Amino acid sequence: MAEELVGNCLIGQSGGPTAVINASVAGVVAEALNHASIEEIYGSLNGVLGLLGEDFVDLAAESQQAIRGLRYTPGAALGTCRSKLKQAAEFERVLEVFKAHNIRYYFHIGDGDSQETASKIAELAQAQGYELRVIGIPKTIENDLPATDHCPGYGSAIKYIGTTVKELALDADALGQGDLVTLVEVMGRNSGWLAAGASLAKRRDHPNDPPHLVYLPEVPFTNEKFLDDVRRVLKRERHAVVVVGEGLVDKDGNYVSVENADAAGHTQLGGVGETLKDLVESQIGAKCRVARLGITQRAAAHLSSKTDADEAFLVGQAAVKAAIAGESGKLVTLVRGDGDTYTCETGLSALGDVIANPKRLPKEWINEDGVSLNFQFFRYATPLIQGEVTVPYDNGLPAYAKLAKESVDKTLPAYEG
Amino acid sequence: MAEELVGNCLIGQSGGPTAVINASVAGVVAEALNHASIEEIYGSLNGVLGLLGEDFVDLAAESQQAIRGLRYTPGAALGTCRSKLKQAAEFERVLEVFKAHNIRYYFHIGDGDSQETASKIAELAQAQGYELRVIGIPKTIENDLPATDHCPGYGSAIKYIGTTVKELALDADALGQGDLVTLVEVMGRNSGWLAAGASLAKRRDHPNDPPHLVYLPEVPFTNEKFLDDVRRVLKRERHAVVVVGEGLVDKDGNYVSVENADAAGHTQLGGVGETLKDLVESQIGAKCRVARLGITQRAAAHLSSKTDADEAFLVGQAAVKAAIAGESGKLVTLVRGDGDTYTCETGLSALGDVIANPKRLPKEWINEDGVSLNFQFFRYATPLIQGEVTVPYDNGLPAYAKLAKESVDKTLPAYEG
Repeated sequence: MAEELVGNCLIGQSGGPTAVINASVAGVVAEALNHASIEEIYGSLNGVLGLLGEDFVDLAAESQQAIRGLRYTPGAALGTCRSKLKQAAEFERVLEVFKAHNIRYYFHIGDGDSQETASKIAELAQAQGYELRVIGIPKTIENDLPATDHCPGYGSAIKYIGTTVKELALDADALGQGDLVTLVEVMGRNSGWLAAGASLAKRRDHPNDPPHLVYLPEVPFTNEKFLDDVRRVLKRERHAVVVVGEGLVDKDGNYVSVENADAAGHTQLGGVGETLKDLVESQIGAKCRVARLGITQRAAAHLSSKTDADEAFLVGQAAVKAAIAGESGKLVTLVRGDGDTYTCETGLSALGDVIANPKRLPKEWINEDGVSLNFQFFRYATPLIQGEVTVPYDNGLPAYAKLAKESVDKTLPAYEG
Repeated sequence: MAEELVGNCLIGQSGGPTAVINASVAGVVAEALNHASIEEIYGSLNGVLGLLGEDFVDLAAESQQAIRGLRYTPGAALGTCRSKLKQAAEFERVLEVFKAHNIRYYFHIGDGDSQETASKIAELAQAQGYELRVIGIPKTIENDLPATDHCPGYGSAIKYIGTTVKELALDADALGQGDLVTLVEVMGRNSGWLAAGASLAKRRDHPNDPPHLVYLPEVPFTNEKFLDDVRRVLKRERHAVVVVGEGLVDKDGNYVSVENADAAGHTQLGGVGETLKDLVESQIGAKCRVARLGITQRAAAHLSSKTDADEAFLVGQAAVKAAIAGESGKLVTLVRGDGDTYTCETGLSALGDVIANPKRLPKEWINEDGVSLNFQFFRYATPLIQGEVTVPYDNGLPAYAKLAKESVDKTLPAYEG
């Protein structure tokens, strides 16, 4: 057993929300209550902004109903932010805040990019001899974190994408007469994990089911092949359903469609659907409509995967157990069992290993035609969308949880950074 | 009792699909089986195209499972089309086809525009002394059919819109720091019924809940007021959720955003979200994201309103009962009870009265601020989204029904129209 470390714990959320990121908060809170060495359970508002600003709320004061409600509530209940800590002075400030509140356990829910912050906080604490256990908790719909079999958030996103593609395809089938193209644009800046997930809408052994064509950033895009593919499907079917990842690139690695770049230098992708619509209309003359799924892909908790929501809760619990056991500087991972029936348990990986090292969709899972996935992808992804979360409805709409957010008193002068 | 009319019945679907248009087909089939005077039950493929082309399928041959599955399957299972019959020769052909198959009952599921076809078929049959009973069945997510309290399809569309706005608002609340605008563009060429439905996402007695601003085609749009409204909300809240109907017009009645017109002269609306995004970014400097809900508004049957799906089934049943009772040239309507508790039964209205006479959102239901709805709208719309349809899931995705579509033998030479 690790030496007992008595003190308070803090949870922060970072990066884009997912349908199940709050389930991980619920998992941390539920497990923290089991351990007497964890005294207070705080949440940091808006991720690292709360760490700097000493903006904490008392999660133990929330009603049990509210914490249970987090298991099916989308968004990020504690707030999140896109900022990263960069300067040494910022990390110094965070540690000062942690000391002021006797934070001894810090749980950071975030994607690969944002786990760098968690890793550096752990390093600085160690360098200063301040006893602190930092555990990262994975989340991202993009499924690009290495070390873990898959990421909480991904299963729900592709369950939503698969369902929506199925529904849009039925709509198109009703209207199509061989001249209607439905373009569904899904997220995925760098990889095709989300676009590939749309394939799950096909019934087993029905390769000609929609989506008829799936374009992935992993396969260099050419207008010629795209137009040939679409023409072939239109000839064979009543209509064509085409899924496109927003991050499609040509053979030179240039994005097929780039909208603009923000001040922080992030390229805002998107519009590839509209670009391809122009191509279809001008070159084929078919009617074309674009569904750009956008933010709904990560927010549609009414359709979450139960498997995903349960695993998001599980990684929260596992993070607390690992910290209590003396671990620090680790990321909780999901480890799939070897058997024919899907099983999944948690593991741990060094935080340093997951940063800036995105996991790509294996090329050998893509069929030779470049527009469909083979059985290896289906075997991988199908278990992740199983089961439906029971969301309570109030007056016809989902009754999502809202935290009371009782503030923790500040003890330090305001941060001037 | 009406004179007994023995013969076959035919069902056609017309115009855009909805989440519950197939439930009306199920209602017709279920009720038709109760009446010995109805011999065969046929479906016309692709609406009026099937009437001209003699493309019928045998609905009585479908499995009971498939017909039951129509109660929760989106799209239009028989296929639909955008074409309207115009020339006298086309109507003559339809009647020739009806005679060839001894069609004595025709049920036309469609919006106001397309009921004109049903009305004219009824008139021509009468003029020719061919005994035929024609009943229109209402459907449209746009809720603009007169004579009926509301239209099947509308309740499910606004349940989806309300849910999605709620989920997008939680995502935005997590990221917002007073500088994030979420624009949700919903359908509605001529009226604000769908945009207004987004208001249901507000909790009772929480007028400041998202959606913070709802722009309706009924209220002339000005850039100045829009920017003032958005600035006010951003100051008050962490972020602003703004719902915009695609058919927004300025004080001169010109669309705020028009994309292009198709060959048939229908203006393809849309892009108002992007237009307003440019305005927000250039004039306020806030970050802005657009969710254009598009076709999903009418296809998301996984989230249908049970009230709506049940009523869609009911109007199908009522159409058959009316025809058996000797009615023709009528539209089935929904009639709301007067009591405090919502009740709804069916009625009948002359088909001629519903054509080209859209029902507008009453102006007195819109608050003086022009961007929110008052209690009259809530009292009207809230009952329409109550209850959830139980959709079966197979391998993680909705298991929607697929008809076998056994063809009925053709008896006439091909139509050369």
